[in-house]
Amino acid sequence: MSAAAPTPGLVAGLCFDIEARDGAARAGRITTAHGVVHTPAFMPVGTAATVKAMTSEALVRTGTEMVLANAYHLMLRPSVERIAALGGLHRFMNWRGPLLTDSGGFQVMSLAPLRQLSEHGVTFRSHIDGATYELTPERSVEIQVELGVDVAMVLDECTPFPASEEQAAESMKLSLRWAERARAAWCGEQGRGLFGIVQGSVYRDLRSACAAALGALEFDGYAIGGLAVGEGPIAMRAIVAHTAALLPAGRPRYLMGVGRPEDIIAAVREGVDLFDCVLPTRSGRTGQAFTGCGTLNIRNARHATDLRPLDESCTCPACAGYSRAYLHHLFQAKEMLGAMLLTWHNIHYYQDLLRGLREAIAEGRTNACVEAMEAALAAGDQAQ
Amino acid sequence: MSAAAPTPGLVAGLCFDIEARDGAARAGRITTAHGVVHTPAFMPVGTAATVKAMTSEALVRTGTEMVLANAYHLMLRPSVERIAALGGLHRFMNWRGPLLTDSGGFQVMSLAPLRQLSEHGVTFRSHIDGATYELTPERSVEIQVELGVDVAMVLDECTPFPASEEQAAESMKLSLRWAERARAAWCGEQGRGLFGIVQGSVYRDLRSACAAALGALEFDGYAIGGLAVGEGPIAMRAIVAHTAALLPAGRPRYLMGVGRPEDIIAAVREGVDLFDCVLPTRSGRTGQAFTGCGTLNIRNARHATDLRPLDESCTCPACAGYSRAYLHHLFQAKEMLGAMLLTWHNIHYYQDLLRGLREAIAEGRTNACVEAMEAALAAGDQAQ
Repeated sequence: MSAAAPTPGLVAGLCFDIEARDGAARAGRITTAHGVVHTPAFMPVGTAATVKAMTSEALVRTGTEMVLANAYHLMLRPSVERIAALGGLHRFMNWRGPLLTDSGGFQVMSLAPLRQLSEHGVTFRSHIDGATYELTPERSVEIQVELGVDVAMVLDECTPFPASEEQAAESMKLSLRWAERARAAWCGEQGRGLFGIVQGSVYRDLRSACAAALGALEFDGYAIGGLAVGEGPIAMRAIVAHTAALLPAGRPRYLMGVGRPEDIIAAVREGVDLFDCVLPTRSGRTGQAFTGCGTLNIRNARHATDLRPLDESCTCPACAGYSRAYLHHLFQAKEMLGAMLLTWHNIHYYQDLLRGLREAIAEGRTNACVEAMEAALAAGDQAQ
Repeated sequence: MSAAAPTPGLVAGLCFDIEARDGAARAGRITTAHGVVHTPAFMPVGTAATVKAMTSEALVRTGTEMVLANAYHLMLRPSVERIAALGGLHRFMNWRGPLLTDSGGFQVMSLAPLRQLSEHGVTFRSHIDGATYELTPERSVEIQVELGVDVAMVLDECTPFPASEEQAAESMKLSLRWAERARAAWCGEQGRGLFGIVQGSVYRDLRSACAAALGALEFDGYAIGGLAVGEGPIAMRAIVAHTAALLPAGRPRYLMGVGRPEDIIAAVREGVDLFDCVLPTRSGRTGQAFTGCGTLNIRNARHATDLRPLDESCTCPACAGYSRAYLHHLFQAKEMLGAMLLTWHNIHYYQDLLRGLREAIAEGRTNACVEAMEAALAAGDQAQ
């Protein structure tokens, strides 16, 4: 494996300015073609070109600066060609800020029936209408360029868990060869970047080898993939700490699909800059709310007559206007407004969490901040 | 039937100022304990203490001044006692403006299993959990007072359609006796009112008799009930025109459960002041959008690549930010945001429609305004 030749894309890519460091943690700014992302940052998940139950305006009001969408879902419906013809993904979904797309590797493995993996790429059937598609590293780059996103992800094979070290090594090496092909296919421009993805399951040596090889390819940023797939929080944190330290210091680091507030706090401390996770949105639809004192399920009968908001320290519209008793009623009555308000609150909570971490890093009090956050989370909502 | 003795409630009830008249149409202000409603006005339906898919803030932004909720649904879930203990319906649902509740008569007839009607009232089983409830004219007033609403409706029997003149007369007379009992049970206060409901099916003589008898009871306002139940638009308009003219000129007139934009336009011309209907909200969830050029269904394939908004003359957030192509995609992908945006647009459209009518009445150009609106509606969306 050799490093690809430098291209104008790298020079013209994403600008990442680290403005403060505190231990391994850092606070900075990623400047994209669609504006600045203050890091560490949380990207709400907008799989099908919509962060479920949120208008773009509401997203902005939570403090969200960057949104994740999914190239796999969009290529199946409404199709990349249609989105491109309609002026690109930003215009299509009315999101003016930075966008990142996942390449679709994870979704092909988890959603698509009849998938066939080869050195060349992967063919699969749509889980929506059964049509056959092919994704290669080159096609995946092309798709994300056509969508017009600010950050594209290389196509990778998300190694299943558990995997033997041999299986994990084979899988990681395939992903590396694909990453090299994606890198070669990428013609960057100002404010757009391509991220490599470190695989290697729970094996530190594999993670080390993968990080080194990707680093030599000089991506605009580096993701840690293949986690939160069943390895558990202890193994996950160990791999995050191990891997983050090996990634190029001057480039953004993105922990894919993670996770719970406590996981994000721990990863920020290890120097991770970007996060995405379906938890705040998916949980919002099932009645789970995140608060500084841990999670609660609003469907629980103890909330039925509680006039307090979800979180008394929260300024989101759900907490400013609506009691737990009312939100409980909305979920009992299966009213959409319940999912809408809890989703809004949860995203607001995540953005508040990251805002707090950014400020703590800037002020050199990350450890104290993290300890206070962790203690409050451990205390739990019931203890109030 | 004799008129009830005057009570302080009547004196202290709702203030209704007619500020302009144009033909039979009038524009005015109802002053309630929770603020002013400019009439003619449209009340979005918030059956279970939520206008489906809308936050209170979004409702305010559509121009909505008054919301309708349903005493029947709220007595079953979460219960009137709970809402009262939590500070009343306004606080519970975070709606600071005027609230009107339907008494539940219509819902008992249409939803509740095992209902038994007697002179005393109606007993029925909850359609949610099978528990037995009793509603009487007096209990219905009591419930609405406990909810703390600005306008309460008398309990009535919504006459089924079709009904023979004899059946309709029997039903109307029962509703009248109930109205007299409700009127006697009502202890009004400043800014709160009780409305009587004219029944009589499609029979003009019955409508006349009912309107006269209710007028003698001196309600704070008068509703025209029992329409939009299958009689068709021609019969409905005839009965509205006939009945509206018989109602006390100085009191608000409310056409219950109606309806389509063209029905509202016609009724405003006949002097009706208040409207409610599930159409904008329910249609929004199924993909139907209202525009100045008639309705469209966003799920139709012709919208899949259409970059135009739902209505190019609309300033709602759905039209300001999102294309038909995107809204089509949201409905194809069964994404909640589709229902949210179409609901918002539809309510905004209804409020724009009423605003336009109020202005036209104030400026003495109601006929020209109505003709222009009707011509545009008849032209249809496809003709653009």
